[in-house]
Amino acid sequence: VTGAPLLAVTMGEPAGIGGELVLQAWIGRRSRALPPFVVLDDPERLESLARGLGFAVPLAVCSDTAGAAEAFERALPVLPMPLAVPARAGRPDPANARVVLASIARGVELVRSGACAALVTNPINKSALYQAGFDHPGHTEYLGALAGPDCRPVMLLEGAGLRVVPVTIHVSVRQALDQLTTEAILSCGRIAAAGLISDFGIDRPRLAVAALNPHGGEGGAWGDEEARIILPAIEALRAEGIAVTGPHPPDAMFHAAARKGYDVALCMLHDQALIPLKTLAFESGVNITLGLPFVRTSPDHGTALDLAGTGRADPSSLVAALHTAARLAANRLRLSAAAAAS
Amino acid sequence: VTGAPLLAVTMGEPAGIGGELVLQAWIGRRSRALPPFVVLDDPERLESLARGLGFAVPLAVCSDTAGAAEAFERALPVLPMPLAVPARAGRPDPANARVVLASIARGVELVRSGACAALVTNPINKSALYQAGFDHPGHTEYLGALAGPDCRPVMLLEGAGLRVVPVTIHVSVRQALDQLTTEAILSCGRIAAAGLISDFGIDRPRLAVAALNPHGGEGGAWGDEEARIILPAIEALRAEGIAVTGPHPPDAMFHAAARKGYDVALCMLHDQALIPLKTLAFESGVNITLGLPFVRTSPDHGTALDLAGTGRADPSSLVAALHTAARLAANRLRLSAAAAAS
Repeated sequence: VTGAPLLAVTMGEPAGIGGELVLQAWIGRRSRALPPFVVLDDPERLESLARGLGFAVPLAVCSDTAGAAEAFERALPVLPMPLAVPARAGRPDPANARVVLASIARGVELVRSGACAALVTNPINKSALYQAGFDHPGHTEYLGALAGPDCRPVMLLEGAGLRVVPVTIHVSVRQALDQLTTEAILSCGRIAAAGLISDFGIDRPRLAVAALNPHGGEGGAWGDEEARIILPAIEALRAEGIAVTGPHPPDAMFHAAARKGYDVALCMLHDQALIPLKTLAFESGVNITLGLPFVRTSPDHGTALDLAGTGRADPSSLVAALHTAARLAANRLRLSAAAAAS
Repeated sequence: VTGAPLLAVTMGEPAGIGGELVLQAWIGRRSRALPPFVVLDDPERLESLARGLGFAVPLAVCSDTAGAAEAFERALPVLPMPLAVPARAGRPDPANARVVLASIARGVELVRSGACAALVTNPINKSALYQAGFDHPGHTEYLGALAGPDCRPVMLLEGAGLRVVPVTIHVSVRQALDQLTTEAILSCGRIAAAGLISDFGIDRPRLAVAALNPHGGEGGAWGDEEARIILPAIEALRAEGIAVTGPHPPDAMFHAAARKGYDVALCMLHDQALIPLKTLAFESGVNITLGLPFVRTSPDHGTALDLAGTGRADPSSLVAALHTAARLAANRLRLSAAAAAS
């Protein structure tokens, strides 16, 4: 790992809003004090997009990352990943699935080699990728597979000062109930605690574990998962020296005063985590993957096919993802340098 | 129904914070421009509570509601409901269960007879009542039973400009999945729409129906309840002339811009409704029961046994419940008068 502050930004779905958000972020690079980044994208499609939207964005097409950080001030550095067919706003084409995935794989190479300090991914369109044979449940799981067999990626979302980790993610509520185990909570809790130390620079992170059921199960009257599944995980985490509280009634842990009591909320269901996060930080939330051998962030929104090509999409979340990636990479580097020195 | 603006306030759990919140609310009656209310409580326990907390609250002990509204300015009107045993802060006693329930029943009589314009209930302690033989799932269901056999009470919570109605309520998440039916959503939707017209004075209320599963089921990949259960209810509501949208991804419907698009969110799970509400309005949320033959509101918090007797409990939610009750009763009266005149 080098100290290069250059970030790698993937293409994402070329029919979505990723490209225009990248162009907008670069245009605002000075006012927003953005860290330098290189985008793994098709220069022709970026040029055409900029032309269509009336954006003045000179490209610095590179063959590798050397000089990209220096070029960033005057031009948007691009490592070319040519599309198979031209992108049409709002209309994903499975013919481009291979290059969408190649852009992610290239990004992983760049961060694993140390050529880039962190990976920032643009949103992908899963159905277009599935049609082309992609068989991972999502972006995060694909990154986990690229990172190696023992890798267990954990999704953390941050926004408006709140951090949440959903233990169950991209499944129905009914399936989530079946997937919720003490082991799953324990594993997420360990990775969350380790990630808050290594990437967020929090010495002794405080975890708040949510209950599953209303009022935390009302003493067992409304579900037994709190006693049967969640409490044993809390006790095991505590036995490992992690500062942990809960299970908390899910509706009483996300207001401003409650949020001061923890560094991350471990949530049992996707929307238990995502509802408070997006209620408070819809435009500016950042998705961070813990448990990977590199720092990865992404904006907390989708491809927004209906907005693509209009220039009306809000780059706040991508901007926050870029800032967060740089901050987390610097923390990780500082701590690993300190560990190496001691 | 008379035009009397007097509100009836129940005792709630006498070991909880209800009594001291009532005293605090009355002390702030002028600065908060509170509507007059009569409290159905034990005058001795209120006197003792006021003395213990150093509150100067003269009581106007009444035998009926005549003159209570006029007395309110100089003293707190009390219709006596004597406790069986003295209340001890933080320690509910099943011996007092009968009078706790009698206070609620008396309140219902007062609003049904027109002596009071609306009912505001203080929180009860369900386990103390269960021990004394109470067999309703909760406060709202008890009120429904008192109101008559055809009554189907629907819980609506309001705070920070957001209104939510949970279709499933006081059950585990697993049971909620089993209870979620097209008929339940349809029935809640009808009562919510009718209540927004009659009590909130919204001519053509806009309902936003939440999905159950993450991302709204991701096109069927993560659960089929959206297509199988929720969409048919939306279509039936629309066929009845109700303005309704959805199913909406649950995490994308509660941020400030989304909230402008509807008057009430119909939620599939307790915490899908309560998490955004309490994240935004933890201290000031109001619980409103629709579908009753009278207006009923209550503060959106519990008995807070740990805070009882300290004087540190925040009366904001009770104050909001009083204001809301007066506003809703006035709307209902105005519309029924208009209907009678036409």
